[in-house]
Amino acid sequence: MAAEQDPEGRAAARPLLTDLYQATMALGYWRAGRARDAAEFELFFRRCPFGGAFALAAGLRDCVRFLRAFRLRDADVQFLASVLPPDTDPAFFEHLRALDCSEVTVRALPEGSLAFPGVPLLQVSGPLLVVQLLETPLLCLVSYASLVATNAARLRLIAGPEKRLLEMGLRRAQGPDGGLTASTYSYLGGFDSSSNVLAGQLRGVPVAGTLAHSFVTSFSGSELPPDPMLVPAAGEGPGVDLAAKAQVWLERVCAHLGLGVQEPHPGERAAFVAYALAFPRAFQGLLDSYSVRRSGLPNFLAVSLALGELGYRAVGVRLDSGDLLQQAQEIRQVFRTIAAQFQVPWLESVSIAVSNNIDEEALMQLAQEGSEVNVIGIGTSVVTCPQQPSLGCVYKLVAVGGQPRMKLTEDPEKQTLPGSKAAFRLLGSDGSPLMDVLQLAEEPVPRAGQELKVWPRGAQGLCTVRPAQVEPLLRLCLQRGQLCEPLPSLAESRALAQLSLSQLSPAHKRLQSLAQYQVGGCPPWCPALGSLTLPPTSPLLCSLQVALSERLQALVDSLRVGASP
Amino acid sequence: MAAEQDPEGRAAARPLLTDLYQATMALGYWRAGRARDAAEFELFFRRCPFGGAFALAAGLRDCVRFLRAFRLRDADVQFLASVLPPDTDPAFFEHLRALDCSEVTVRALPEGSLAFPGVPLLQVSGPLLVVQLLETPLLCLVSYASLVATNAARLRLIAGPEKRLLEMGLRRAQGPDGGLTASTYSYLGGFDSSSNVLAGQLRGVPVAGTLAHSFVTSFSGSELPPDPMLVPAAGEGPGVDLAAKAQVWLERVCAHLGLGVQEPHPGERAAFVAYALAFPRAFQGLLDSYSVRRSGLPNFLAVSLALGELGYRAVGVRLDSGDLLQQAQEIRQVFRTIAAQFQVPWLESVSIAVSNNIDEEALMQLAQEGSEVNVIGIGTSVVTCPQQPSLGCVYKLVAVGGQPRMKLTEDPEKQTLPGSKAAFRLLGSDGSPLMDVLQLAEEPVPRAGQELKVWPRGAQGLCTVRPAQVEPLLRLCLQRGQLCEPLPSLAESRALAQLSLSQLSPAHKRLQSLAQYQVGGCPPWCPALGSLTLPPTSPLLCSLQVALSERLQALVDSLRVGASP
Repeated sequence: MAAEQDPEGRAAARPLLTDLYQATMALGYWRAGRARDAAEFELFFRRCPFGGAFALAAGLRDCVRFLRAFRLRDADVQFLASVLPPDTDPAFFEHLRALDCSEVTVRALPEGSLAFPGVPLLQVSGPLLVVQLLETPLLCLVSYASLVATNAARLRLIAGPEKRLLEMGLRRAQGPDGGLTASTYSYLGGFDSSSNVLAGQLRGVPVAGTLAHSFVTSFSGSELPPDPMLVPAAGEGPGVDLAAKAQVWLERVCAHLGLGVQEPHPGERAAFVAYALAFPRAFQGLLDSYSVRRSGLPNFLAVSLALGELGYRAVGVRLDSGDLLQQAQEIRQVFRTIAAQFQVPWLESVSIAVSNNIDEEALMQLAQEGSEVNVIGIGTSVVTCPQQPSLGCVYKLVAVGGQPRMKLTEDPEKQTLPGSKAAFRLLGSDGSPLMDVLQLAEEPVPRAGQELKVWPRGAQGLCTVRPAQVEPLLRLCLQRGQLCEPLPSLAESRALAQLSLSQLSPAHKRLQSLAQYQVGGCPPWCPALGSLTLPPTSPLLCSLQVALSERLQALVDSLRVGASP
Repeated sequence: MAAEQDPEGRAAARPLLTDLYQATMALGYWRAGRARDAAEFELFFRRCPFGGAFALAAGLRDCVRFLRAFRLRDADVQFLASVLPPDTDPAFFEHLRALDCSEVTVRALPEGSLAFPGVPLLQVSGPLLVVQLLETPLLCLVSYASLVATNAARLRLIAGPEKRLLEMGLRRAQGPDGGLTASTYSYLGGFDSSSNVLAGQLRGVPVAGTLAHSFVTSFSGSELPPDPMLVPAAGEGPGVDLAAKAQVWLERVCAHLGLGVQEPHPGERAAFVAYALAFPRAFQGLLDSYSVRRSGLPNFLAVSLALGELGYRAVGVRLDSGDLLQQAQEIRQVFRTIAAQFQVPWLESVSIAVSNNIDEEALMQLAQEGSEVNVIGIGTSVVTCPQQPSLGCVYKLVAVGGQPRMKLTEDPEKQTLPGSKAAFRLLGSDGSPLMDVLQLAEEPVPRAGQELKVWPRGAQGLCTVRPAQVEPLLRLCLQRGQLCEPLPSLAESRALAQLSLSQLSPAHKRLQSLAQYQVGGCPPWCPALGSLTLPPTSPLLCSLQVALSERLQALVDSLRVGASP
């Protein structure tokens, strides 16, 4: 498999891939003399997707690539000038021309980590103007990547570890890059491979694929291949006419199956022979172009047995319609009787692949005990995440010039937790995560084995927890524009995701989970706007909130007054 | 506004953005000596999205760009070699290296046309190997573009012609290109503008945007702008300290509104002043960072009235939380009383923009008669199409070497209509579309004013129709790789979409339509596999199907036998 690489530098994620208001605000900051104020933003989500209790963090590698290349070109600045007021000070555009991320620092949850509501996936600090400009592209790069990785992880949990999962949703994605992102991050989330060749070339995702119905239906059976001869697998001996040999085997197979030898479609057989000539060591058959039992299966068996005589072993069949589970059982049974009848034991274990709009529910059926399905191809429902097609990440200002900042709207869920924070995961003695804790960056780190009082988000009071281990969650990833450590490979991030999921408690692994994983230290005025007593995780965060609370209380009072007409 | 352009050649849509099975089939065709067989594929969908009765065709401009640039680079061929069998004949890779679309011909529904189930959006003909390779990228480029354009058209129908619709979903899209595609095609479908700057730069989409909460909350009120002075709009006279003038107006506004002058947040006001200094002719306020009525609105009025004194007119406000319709009514009322009180009539008509997870249902509320909302920003629900996040286009082989081809599976809906076809739209005397008709390419064109017998898809018998006009639907777009006519601009395609929709009958415009638009000439063995009497639209298509029917009947009989265990 090719190494992960991107010789074209991910051209799609460019600085102007942003909302216009980032540029208008940039001008506002600049005009106010605040372009270089030190600022910090947090990127997080408010609810786990799909009704579950976990998400996987993903998209960081694309963010890093984007940030390191971030630079407005002349054409970009000229375009911005064309949409900003004509009398804008030219010095502003000079400022834009000189921008890069050399003063930007990023802390992040490593890709493949478990992520929970309110815990930052990214902390981005640097000059106010530039970190503001980064909002939209970072959201764009993280939200969908994390969503599709989480979706893939759920599908993997349903499928269990043995079934092979193939992502094949490129044609259903939001254009070219939607497909590339989907393939990359569904692999990270637990799929085995993708049909997307570009994801293989640029990202090192293992690629897989065989043939479509058009290949089968393009043959009528009257075509004459220029070279119908196949040399035996051992490489010795004269070539053999594969089509002729398949015809001989067809008679035996049809006799065994009680079919007339005219029933299997000759065009389908010709297609299988053509494919086998090109892939004698990797022959696979798509069985449902005409009729699985009357045509696809006997044709596949005839060609496979002909190949087998030459020392080659067919590797698989695919079904793309009908009752997939039932057909797989029947096909496996036929494989077994044919294997016994013709003494070709390898036929018993030929892989059975299925596809056709498979969603979580259908996957549960296909993954049930005793299922003979080996490979499951999933397109639309992994790529489009139809249960919830967006994650809803936000990017919120938490500090400027070292001073905490928050948003307090009429909508309690949209309020933010102010201040620059650190995040920790508290683990039990079995290594499973108990709770995540947010506290102010300057507070002492929670220690393993010591009792901690935390106020879980949404709870009515403090609880006590004694973690066996404490893991800091956010790693310094980019320090003033410099990469602090090499990024893990995609396969390493995939392994981290599987490890993380394996440590998650069964209650939190459930796909529709009532047991939400707890995050402590969230603002207690969520969700009840009125309850402004502010007991947080930590003494310092507490005092910060108390300091803010006078102002908050006044505002909330005014809201209460305002609420009565 | 910039012209539509793409100086980087849409790098994301590359030849390897395809499913691996296209490459394995390519090898199969090549090995069978069939790489250059003349083949024709049709790209179509089977059901209109979102439960409606229409779709808009879109994505053609991206397909044309992709096809004209189609060429496998050395690195691409090397990558394919790395995933194909090691003993693959090197001549195959030489064949790939020489591939382009110079023998590919494309007929298409123009972008912005109404599209209906089964009618090809694209007909692609050329050498079998290359037109097979094009399947996945063409599906990827057409499916989502058409889906999001249709979604945008529905939202436009709900909003009516007057409300301004802003697409702002970049952060919720499937990565960078998902966002670019969404912005481009939601504009085509009827939106007025996008927040996505790159869509403006590369596609000429009008861009719009103002400020976010982070801009507001980044100000505490203690900041000192380097230059607080603003010169009057007329350009004459000395500069005026805008913040000081706003403070004076604040007192008057608060007195009028019955608020204490301390209630409006000073940081919010400072943010508004900073924004107004940067955009004196385009000042807008985001009102809900703290409290709309107690803070955002009085601060906005103070700054607007200060600007007004200098001859500038504020252009708008935005609300992003709470009851948007109700708040808009109240704000308009305040605008009116303040306009009267201070004799600033322009204030009455300041634009009110709203956003916050607006879907079709919420939009219906906001668009109701008497609504004071002027601009509606929609993100997630236009970009992700949550009602149905994929269109399900397919690309099916209909002919090889001039011979019709079809797929006949156990799943009747997946069967295809064989043969190279022409498509016509029959129009009534009022210009509204009555029905689309598919027939074989060589049949005589239906004529206006003449009676036609057609068999609508899914119907039980023939019906008679006398069209006032007949429009051929498919235009020759690319002939042997050459563009046949300049592509319309995006704005022209947008105008075509609005014109097409305006001609559609009210029954077909309904968003949940029971009255499906009829398409004639679909295979009668859909949906009842058993009914193989074949009365199609046209005599020739009929005889074609009869010629196929012997084979079909045998297969169907075998399926029936196979169906009993």
